[in-house]
Amino acid sequence: MKNQLHDMPSEEFIKYGYQLIDWVADYLSNIEKFPVLAQVKPGDVKSNLPYKAPEIGESFDKIIDDLNKIILPGTTHWNHPNFMAYFNSTSSGPGILGELLSAAFNANGMVWKSNPAGTELEETVLNWFRELIGLTPIYFGIVYDTASVSTMHAIAAAREYTGLDFRTNGVHGLPKLILYCTEQTHSSIDKAAITLGIGLNGIRKISTDENFAMIPNKLIDAIKEDRSKGNLPFCVVATIGTTSSTAVDPVDSIADICEKENLWLHVDSAYAGVTAMLPEMKNYFKGMERADSIVINPHKWLFVPVDFSILYTSKPDVLKRAFSLVPEYLKTPEESVINYMDYGIQLGRRFRSLKLWFVLRYFGVEGLQQRLREHLRLAKLFASWVDENSNFERLAPVYFGTICFRAKPINNLSEDELNVLNEKLLHSINETGKVFLVHTKLKGKFTIRLVISGLRMEEKHVESAWKLIKEKLRELES
Amino acid sequence: MKNQLHDMPSEEFIKYGYQLIDWVADYLSNIEKFPVLAQVKPGDVKSNLPYKAPEIGESFDKIIDDLNKIILPGTTHWNHPNFMAYFNSTSSGPGILGELLSAAFNANGMVWKSNPAGTELEETVLNWFRELIGLTPIYFGIVYDTASVSTMHAIAAAREYTGLDFRTNGVHGLPKLILYCTEQTHSSIDKAAITLGIGLNGIRKISTDENFAMIPNKLIDAIKEDRSKGNLPFCVVATIGTTSSTAVDPVDSIADICEKENLWLHVDSAYAGVTAMLPEMKNYFKGMERADSIVINPHKWLFVPVDFSILYTSKPDVLKRAFSLVPEYLKTPEESVINYMDYGIQLGRRFRSLKLWFVLRYFGVEGLQQRLREHLRLAKLFASWVDENSNFERLAPVYFGTICFRAKPINNLSEDELNVLNEKLLHSINETGKVFLVHTKLKGKFTIRLVISGLRMEEKHVESAWKLIKEKLRELES
Repeated sequence: MKNQLHDMPSEEFIKYGYQLIDWVADYLSNIEKFPVLAQVKPGDVKSNLPYKAPEIGESFDKIIDDLNKIILPGTTHWNHPNFMAYFNSTSSGPGILGELLSAAFNANGMVWKSNPAGTELEETVLNWFRELIGLTPIYFGIVYDTASVSTMHAIAAAREYTGLDFRTNGVHGLPKLILYCTEQTHSSIDKAAITLGIGLNGIRKISTDENFAMIPNKLIDAIKEDRSKGNLPFCVVATIGTTSSTAVDPVDSIADICEKENLWLHVDSAYAGVTAMLPEMKNYFKGMERADSIVINPHKWLFVPVDFSILYTSKPDVLKRAFSLVPEYLKTPEESVINYMDYGIQLGRRFRSLKLWFVLRYFGVEGLQQRLREHLRLAKLFASWVDENSNFERLAPVYFGTICFRAKPINNLSEDELNVLNEKLLHSINETGKVFLVHTKLKGKFTIRLVISGLRMEEKHVESAWKLIKEKLRELES
Repeated sequence: MKNQLHDMPSEEFIKYGYQLIDWVADYLSNIEKFPVLAQVKPGDVKSNLPYKAPEIGESFDKIIDDLNKIILPGTTHWNHPNFMAYFNSTSSGPGILGELLSAAFNANGMVWKSNPAGTELEETVLNWFRELIGLTPIYFGIVYDTASVSTMHAIAAAREYTGLDFRTNGVHGLPKLILYCTEQTHSSIDKAAITLGIGLNGIRKISTDENFAMIPNKLIDAIKEDRSKGNLPFCVVATIGTTSSTAVDPVDSIADICEKENLWLHVDSAYAGVTAMLPEMKNYFKGMERADSIVINPHKWLFVPVDFSILYTSKPDVLKRAFSLVPEYLKTPEESVINYMDYGIQLGRRFRSLKLWFVLRYFGVEGLQQRLREHLRLAKLFASWVDENSNFERLAPVYFGTICFRAKPINNLSEDELNVLNEKLLHSINETGKVFLVHTKLKGKFTIRLVISGLRMEEKHVESAWKLIKEKLRELES
């Protein structure tokens, strides 16, 4: 059958499709049997793979065999309940099945006509989600792959919003554009500034308070200073849930300043934004409804497989003005429809809405809220253990599912010694392969971050992580 | 089972996973039963979907039911063998199964450590493919989502290559950057120029010859003129297989000019690049091995589901210099490894290499070559039918799998009348739902494009498309 010029024969697709569905079910059911962090050395995976593609097609059995022997041991398991690093993101059954269908359709929704269902399902599920997080219908949503790309588009819209014709002239010979954020803002802002021709020296990092939140008065001062120098302030990025410590900038006060100064307000809530679905969390999102653009990633903490980042904007026309370009071969007569390609640099667009649709429908709003609430509960619980233990110190407030802390044994160690100790501690924890954590630095302090957002995470996992951390500290001290 | 806080239970995942594997197998086997172009009006899909997300989770049966009733009829079928529009891209069984696994792992390969197997498999399959298309090991490969994003990164690297510090200073106050391409170059170049702060007036569209290929002497003149004005020429984009007519720019001569002028040479072969796997096609790629960067999309014509665009560059350090930024929480001690996040704006990276690995292994190099050869043969065959028919006229050379033509009946119609006739002809073909074609304009002529690159496309499909085209022309004339 394989020598014909077609696809894999249907019966073979079914046979191996079933096998891989079983494989995935097994993998996810038994994921705790694997070390969470891949226990391979650089080059180990590569050295087991041939140097050349096979001349003649191989049987799928052989491919699955290599998947087990070579790929699986080399994978860091993001779905593992002890993956508490970065902003852990986990996929769910419905999300995985949504992605399967998206690959099967292989429909590219650059224009409405090239995937009407994809375009209208994207509109629909983004409206569903918009309503869930309490935004009004003035917000238009679009899915991009990653928060970095969403953010880059938001800042490009902000640039366009100045009214200067960047589209035609670029940034040459114009006043220096200035964007405001904080030291705690995600590095994607820096990458966007590089990309957009603004440059890193077009970013002002405003000081933060003791909770790592932007100080609005410092923002006012900086804008004033830039205006006096003849620079062109154009955008403020406020974060609800920063990457290091999940700090929350005072968005409402920042929105006042942006309004007065006519600056674009972008809110980065890529991580924490999904918790706006919970009425009791609304206080953290005060002012978000005044933003010109907002980024929220369902692929981070809503069990939708990567990639799925949403940009909402109250000014879609500005975004469209920045990017719309329709070559002859893409002109379509449908006038009343959304052609998503008009809103960004990417022309090709996968049928991503399927996976969010599946997740929202299968779990339901209540089911998702319950899961988020449980993660928030576990985070508070872990924080309480840290607070009650005199050998540890919490280094930031716990608003969402992330705890920043360090070991600080009672014997008076210097800050430098504490940094060395905590670096060793983190290393010894990760080395076990049992739990995976990463660090950050807060006020110069080496800080261990523990993130609770995994679909498979239960109280027992958080408990055993805490036990391991204490144990490793004891070992280091002995 | 559903009220617990976990994922979909394993047995349910298996049950619906099997159902969806069957669904996909059925869908692909019976795809010819569907109209290729969705026969829905704007709003049809949306109006069948509720306004709100469900409060309580729903059964997967209901979701599959809506998939059949609402989504399927609203989908334009890219996998349909009569989809001959745009650059048709089709997915294959192995590619779909690769995507399934990628969603299941949900591993985010921003740094080596966060997905060692993903990082090293990406390196390996991109090396395999590099060798297949005849590039030397000096080329470093990286996968991005789309050609537009690959191209944007290539041009950002070109900007960096000038030696001016755009990273710090942006484009402000620097000489005007100038990029050269042709009127036939893809619109992604324009979007990249907008994004990167270069502006549309930083693009010089060099005249093309009768085959829509760049005229090197015109390029020399334009560079000279820009230098005399104090502008800063920095990049030339040459295309092997343009989007409208699949024209081939004389890359070797352009490379001579770039070498002399110290300009970055980017080769866009997003569509046609995969045919460099065929020894008999090498002549079209002469000079590509001198490019600083090259984009090729296996998701276009190698049966890998969207998204999969490769950027090869002989100057990875320049690309890295432009984009590398490592915040504290992403610092890793592994020094000898590739952290792909250093090479672009996207931090999140799906485990995309699996799907190309599956496709290359399952079909084998020979199998893929055979399929490409068959498409090239069918394109020549269709072109010969056009050439032999006195009611039709071919409007561009057929190098790859795309035929540009129009109806030109013997009764002496003016150019305007011919444009109207061909627009009507295209509309009446697409209206049948049997074949999907799009148009372009070449030298002011309304041009019908027919693209042969689908995995399920056979001679009979090309024959019946030709029959339909002739039939519809007769109807319009009667």
